[in-house]
Amino acid sequence: MTENNKENYPSDSAGRQMTAKIPLAKPEETLFDVEKRLRERKAEYETINYIYVIDDREILVGVASIKDIFRWPKEKRVKEIMKTKLVTASPFTDQEKVVNLALAHNLKAIPVVETGRILGVVLSDKIISILNREFHEDILHFSGISKARLEYENTLSVPLLQGVRHRLPWLIIGLFGGIGAAQIMGFFEKIISQNLILAFFTPLIVYLSDAVGTQIQTIFVRDLAIRNHIFSLKRYIAKQFSITFLLALICSILFSIAASLIWQDFYLSLVVGIAIFFTLISAVLIAILIPFLLFRLGTDPAFGSGPSATILQDILSVVIYFSIASLML
Amino acid sequence: MTENNKENYPSDSAGRQMTAKIPLAKPEETLFDVEKRLRERKAEYETINYIYVIDDREILVGVASIKDIFRWPKEKRVKEIMKTKLVTASPFTDQEKVVNLALAHNLKAIPVVETGRILGVVLSDKIISILNREFHEDILHFSGISKARLEYENTLSVPLLQGVRHRLPWLIIGLFGGIGAAQIMGFFEKIISQNLILAFFTPLIVYLSDAVGTQIQTIFVRDLAIRNHIFSLKRYIAKQFSITFLLALICSILFSIAASLIWQDFYLSLVVGIAIFFTLISAVLIAILIPFLLFRLGTDPAFGSGPSATILQDILSVVIYFSIASLML
Repeated sequence: MTENNKENYPSDSAGRQMTAKIPLAKPEETLFDVEKRLRERKAEYETINYIYVIDDREILVGVASIKDIFRWPKEKRVKEIMKTKLVTASPFTDQEKVVNLALAHNLKAIPVVETGRILGVVLSDKIISILNREFHEDILHFSGISKARLEYENTLSVPLLQGVRHRLPWLIIGLFGGIGAAQIMGFFEKIISQNLILAFFTPLIVYLSDAVGTQIQTIFVRDLAIRNHIFSLKRYIAKQFSITFLLALICSILFSIAASLIWQDFYLSLVVGIAIFFTLISAVLIAILIPFLLFRLGTDPAFGSGPSATILQDILSVVIYFSIASLML
Repeated sequence: MTENNKENYPSDSAGRQMTAKIPLAKPEETLFDVEKRLRERKAEYETINYIYVIDDREILVGVASIKDIFRWPKEKRVKEIMKTKLVTASPFTDQEKVVNLALAHNLKAIPVVETGRILGVVLSDKIISILNREFHEDILHFSGISKARLEYENTLSVPLLQGVRHRLPWLIIGLFGGIGAAQIMGFFEKIISQNLILAFFTPLIVYLSDAVGTQIQTIFVRDLAIRNHIFSLKRYIAKQFSITFLLALICSILFSIAASLIWQDFYLSLVVGIAIFFTLISAVLIAILIPFLLFRLGTDPAFGSGPSATILQDILSVVIYFSIASLML
């Protein structure tokens, strides 16, 4: 077991985050033997919280905690006290999934095995730092803040121009997205000039479809990262679609009732209500299909989420809204 | 040291998250004494990774790791091997700040002290679970998903109607916010009908000011939670204002140039460009002042952020945009 080959594993994999400096033991050894070795080789180990038990072929067969080593009489054998129900990761497992394993099983460290052989262990400090980094990545990404080094921005210590540079890219793209949306609204100039009130509902349409899209993609991108191929995409889309269908139905009915009371124009309220329904439904497509396509293409699905999806959604919503209005009015 | 009085501390405090089941030692004890006690009382301790060293008044004076206990000859005294540079929290410290301490100093556990006396320790598994919970809280909050229990929503296992209920509240509020925005645009009906193209830029104005606002508030709400009273609000606002000022300037100039090339109407492009500048500046107010006021009123500043701030920002942007257009056209 060496540290040398860690670079062979993909970045963000368990193989990259593991340490091989862990105490090992054989099942037949006594606790006295183990303790003696812990004492002699203490400098070699990064942690002695857990002792990993391997057979002659280096296959991981159990784990004992340092507390267990203390707890039992020294003449006991390791195999008598070790736990054999093991939660392990492969060296190619995504680091986010390693964190998820630790959280799901309430473990402080996750052993990394390949065809049964132990290669190393991802320790609790690594798990904390991965969790923290993933957290920053997601939060900053969804807020449209891009950073080369993914530390949380401390506003007071970041140089002014750097603060500007971190926040500018998505605004520029949003600016051109907005210009595109304005040009598209231009195509509908006639219907808008005949029914000026239609234009008044653009902030509403844009807000609602963005909000639904953000809700879906936040959960979807995360599920893709953590669960990967495990879940059935068909069932997943069906579930998200059902939830969004109900949300869209509730919102459009509520809107139609409120708007016809306020503006006393039932037909117009119905037209906008129907447009709300279809723009919200379209949010499922943007929020699931784009990250999914990127994922299938091998790109990080997070790239297709956050601000980029919001800008796309804005343009699509404008197209759908005014197309429906043109058809119905 | 008892576990009984944990309930006296506020929820989400270090006092609530700590365990008192930790090994203690006196500075004059030998490592032999310590090891003997670890062995005898093993069942009492939740972890034996660190041994906390206290004087006769229970004042925390140092810490030794289990590895140190092994590393040195048994006749050494605890005071000879213990580290005396300590990172501690008070029982009233917010749990998010405890996580921050652990991350900043790369520690697996944080001792909790009051007037120097050790009350307990927040362990790494608690730190991982706090970090994970805060992560979910923030991500779900900013995505407009409300949940009673803050676990990550697993879309396939959440019942359909529950999935709807988690996502509906902010959409309804957004719906009525959008109706408000439409009514406000109605006040400007005359200027809009005379310059229909003004209406085409509402998605752009709304997107950009929301995006800037989300960037600011994401960082600000987090800074409030972690740094609390430590930072100077005046300097903070000044810095955020400077960054936003530059962003607003760049966006409005870029827009004016692009729009006058596309629509060949320099004066209109200038009017909308100026409106972009002021709506982006207004985002600083919404994103900082509202969370800050809530914070001063003792409410969780997170309530004033996310979707609620976005809806407020949308309405304010519409008011500012059409007011400027009315004044200048």
